Amino acid sequence: MTEYSQSKLNTVNRLRKREHDTDYLSGKYDFETIHGLVNQSPVVHVAFATDPSEPFPTILPMIGQMGSFEDSSAGLDSPLDCYLHGYVSSRIMRLSQEAVARGEDGLPVCVTATKVDGFVLALAPFHHSYNYRSAILHGYAQPVESEEEKAWAMELVTNSVVPQRWQNARTPATKTEMKSTTILRVKIHAGSAKFRNGGAHDDRFDLKDESVVNNVWSGVVPTWQVMGDPIPSSDNAVAKVPAYLKEFVEKENIRNKDIAVNAVKE
Amino acid sequence: MTEYSQSKLNTVNRLRKREHDTDYLSGKYDFETIHGLVNQSPVVHVAFATDPSEPFPTILPMIGQMGSFEDSSAGLDSPLDCYLHGYVSSRIMRLSQEAVARGEDGLPVCVTATKVDGFVLALAPFHHSYNYRSAILHGYAQPVESEEEKAWAMELVTNSVVPQRWQNARTPATKTEMKSTTILRVKIHAGSAKFRNGGAHDDRFDLKDESVVNNVWSGVVPTWQVMGDPIPSSDNAVAKVPAYLKEFVEKENIRNKDIAVNAVKE
Repeated sequence: MTEYSQSKLNTVNRLRKREHDTDYLSGKYDFETIHGLVNQSPVVHVAFATDPSEPFPTILPMIGQMGSFEDSSAGLDSPLDCYLHGYVSSRIMRLSQEAVARGEDGLPVCVTATKVDGFVLALAPFHHSYNYRSAILHGYAQPVESEEEKAWAMELVTNSVVPQRWQNARTPATKTEMKSTTILRVKIHAGSAKFRNGGAHDDRFDLKDESVVNNVWSGVVPTWQVMGDPIPSSDNAVAKVPAYLKEFVEKENIRNKDIAVNAVKE
Repeated sequence: MTEYSQSKLNTVNRLRKREHDTDYLSGKYDFETIHGLVNQSPVVHVAFATDPSEPFPTILPMIGQMGSFEDSSAGLDSPLDCYLHGYVSSRIMRLSQEAVARGEDGLPVCVTATKVDGFVLALAPFHHSYNYRSAILHGYAQPVESEEEKAWAMELVTNSVVPQRWQNARTPATKTEMKSTTILRVKIHAGSAKFRNGGAHDDRFDLKDESVVNNVWSGVVPTWQVMGDPIPSSDNAVAKVPAYLKEFVEKENIRNKDIAVNAVKE
């Protein structure tokens, strides 16, 4: 199995109001694309129902990373769990624990990762669009209870922010740190991704109208997340920015720009 | 009224597992901060419950912009609605319409806007954090039905991507375009924002440990969204990138970098 099976829950609706634009829109179900997108996003958004008395679902921004504790060498194209860390409010933790206590699979959650790659400016506002990549996962969240899995997940999550950071920070975690850290494991039930690539596309009647074509600039403004020079803390005593950090910032900046610029090509 | 009143739903939980870090974390309820954050985010995430038979809420990435159709000159510090546009799936549209038809206020949704401003690298992974700004709104979504309000909202949303774009594109919208555009208006029920600013902070025992302090780099890697040079489409006939677009890209890039770098200062 290297992809999520399609169901009503995760099938990407390709039928759009702007029919001709569907050529530039694609739905994906393979593990590698979806898991890779989650892992490349510094933040994921996690939705859950709060209370039977409350009509609104709630969203928390969290750090999310795909991984397999049972087979830590498993690639992105394998079935993986989603590990969530962040400002875990008492609510999502309590609800996850309560669901497990009731004998359920966990708290039903939705996890999304979205990257905006460009602003598509067509002649008509109606054909304006974004180049973007968006992954969505549905699954059941449980608090990680075992010390061993928690320690493994802390390393996974830390290295998802900056590769090799765990090995280059003060580790292992103390007993108090272990106790005070809460991580959720989401068993994935369904997943999909949606991409939009390409340039600006307009209706023929606009393209034939010289007063429009000669006056309206059309194209794409590529956009990406960039990292600046690392700023040392007042307590920092290491004179040089370490190589693993310097190289990560440089490579990631080039990579992110390439993705955004290449997304414009068709 | 210039802020959202606090209730169980929107009160920011400041009690964190890392107690000393609460100094750098703040909850905000004023309209200006929350609405400003939504308006500056190219994408918002919208959560809603899909079906009584379905345990999972779902999240859609959409374009969101705060505004008041009744008083279009209202500032960010006024009570505003949230207008949503995007790949409006049939589901969120259908559910919103059905809720209205049942005489309800609309579909209960949660709208979030999140900006990551920096990766905070402390000596211990436990004290790693993000500088970030996150806004959350709860409210009731209704499809915009009136032609006048829809036309107004289309301009609002288009200009939220690139200021003055509506005036500089082929407008007004045709009848077909109007008919094919779906916009949701969210009446806000509750709102709040959460910020984390500052540098890296560690426990005294780590700061006193020379083997740690002399080996682990600590500080913040600032991060922000940048726009590249606009890339003209193959159909584009306007030789120069227009001033309104060029200036927007330049100013926004400087502004976004300033926010990320200044967030590190305490």
